[in-house]
Amino acid sequence: MNQSNHFGDRLATAVSSKRSAVCVGLDPRWQSLPEAIRSGIDIANRAAVAKATECYCRCVLDAVADSAAIVKPQAAFFEQLGPEGMHCLEEVIQYSHTKGLDVLLDGKRGDIGSTAEGYADAYLGVQSAWGCDALTVNPYLGDDTLEPFVKTANERGAGIFVLVKTSNPGSGFMQDLVFEGKSLYHRVSQVVQKHSSDSRGQSGYGNVGAVVGATYPQQLAEMRAAMPNVWLLIHGYVAQGVTAEDVADGFDTKGLGAIVNSSPGIIFA
Amino acid sequence: MNQSNHFGDRLATAVSSKRSAVCVGLDPRWQSLPEAIRSGIDIANRAAVAKATECYCRCVLDAVADSAAIVKPQAAFFEQLGPEGMHCLEEVIQYSHTKGLDVLLDGKRGDIGSTAEGYADAYLGVQSAWGCDALTVNPYLGDDTLEPFVKTANERGAGIFVLVKTSNPGSGFMQDLVFEGKSLYHRVSQVVQKHSSDSRGQSGYGNVGAVVGATYPQQLAEMRAAMPNVWLLIHGYVAQGVTAEDVADGFDTKGLGAIVNSSPGIIFA
Repeated sequence: MNQSNHFGDRLATAVSSKRSAVCVGLDPRWQSLPEAIRSGIDIANRAAVAKATECYCRCVLDAVADSAAIVKPQAAFFEQLGPEGMHCLEEVIQYSHTKGLDVLLDGKRGDIGSTAEGYADAYLGVQSAWGCDALTVNPYLGDDTLEPFVKTANERGAGIFVLVKTSNPGSGFMQDLVFEGKSLYHRVSQVVQKHSSDSRGQSGYGNVGAVVGATYPQQLAEMRAAMPNVWLLIHGYVAQGVTAEDVADGFDTKGLGAIVNSSPGIIFA
Repeated sequence: MNQSNHFGDRLATAVSSKRSAVCVGLDPRWQSLPEAIRSGIDIANRAAVAKATECYCRCVLDAVADSAAIVKPQAAFFEQLGPEGMHCLEEVIQYSHTKGLDVLLDGKRGDIGSTAEGYADAYLGVQSAWGCDALTVNPYLGDDTLEPFVKTANERGAGIFVLVKTSNPGSGFMQDLVFEGKSLYHRVSQVVQKHSSDSRGQSGYGNVGAVVGATYPQQLAEMRAAMPNVWLLIHGYVAQGVTAEDVADGFDTKGLGAIVNSSPGIIFA
């Protein structure tokens, strides 16, 4: 769709030109797929299950290609299908690219040193078999462990989305704890803002985004202000009873700066 | 080697019978493999790279089968090889089992709700293509997100190892922060202890372990005491200049309760 070699700018162009901030989740849990897709397939036949999953994802991609700003396959549901599922993921990513869609893989990877380099290279590197445009990353191991991901993303004009504040009930167990007047998620958001400011493009947005939950709308305005150069991936839309009004504070005055995940609403409607 | 349907007990039997607490890491970074393995293989030929990696891992498994308490493939380095690498991982896990070795996959997975179920099912479930015996898990998303992993592990007599305190320099960014007199990693360790106490077997150890870094030896005794029913996976051995004395405090009085990761020392010696 557009060939900017900068993820933040590419996403801005997609959102502007399509007038859509929808991030379409591809969450192909086998048991949740339409009966017509699963009919007659033995779950023990991994190749057949993976092939049917691929067909399903292609149908979804055909349906949403014009309206989605970006698509987000959930790695877990492909990994669940074994090596055949990982091959299916590769096919789905390639097909997304033929549709002009950038692919954000929701893998929530995170590790130290050379292992983080391995993950970054696996999904975002020049020689990546998967060739994702962006990857979700977990910060628990420390700020130093984000650097290999940031480096690889910047080199390839790809992006990462760091988990900052998630939408599940238990997210407060760790993320909401307050040290010296600042919550842990705020502490993470500062690191994300720094990396994205350092890599910001013409749109004003950088290559390092933040995953934030829409189940806590009061925090969206706070995070928007704290991370002015950061794309927010807002989770919890529709399925968790969140409305469009609830996510409005995630956007900047131009209607940029946020993408809103929409999986169950679109896919299992 | 032994067929106990309880991960904690199975690991205790392995450590006792082999008189070894060594967890052999399988970290097949392509660039680090011996020249004899890589010679003549074009890195762009994914099938050939994956096959050579599989051969290498089989050689290592042959060499360590009698002395390793358990083996730990690093998922990142298999994922880096694309879908072919994931097939290679499956072969390596199956070969480990033929050698009587339990397999702890170092994947550091973590997600919410049904996605966590997906990961648990993918690697530990009854129908898992990979059939791992244990998986490393990241707790950043919250205590509720550990539950699907714990449930699946207990149902199948498998295990999980939750990241508690890692060995990298930046681990203090989050893990060492103190709330109400307790560090964040201590807070995580309490959840791990609860789950492992609930699932403890005849050995006294449960199915939920903890990843701890040996680079902070003073913390090992503290963690051993705080998690009496928990297997500790101690990281940072050899490569980070840690000695056997440094990890002694991780063991109980019977010499159980800890396994010590040894990757570079064994594999690239």
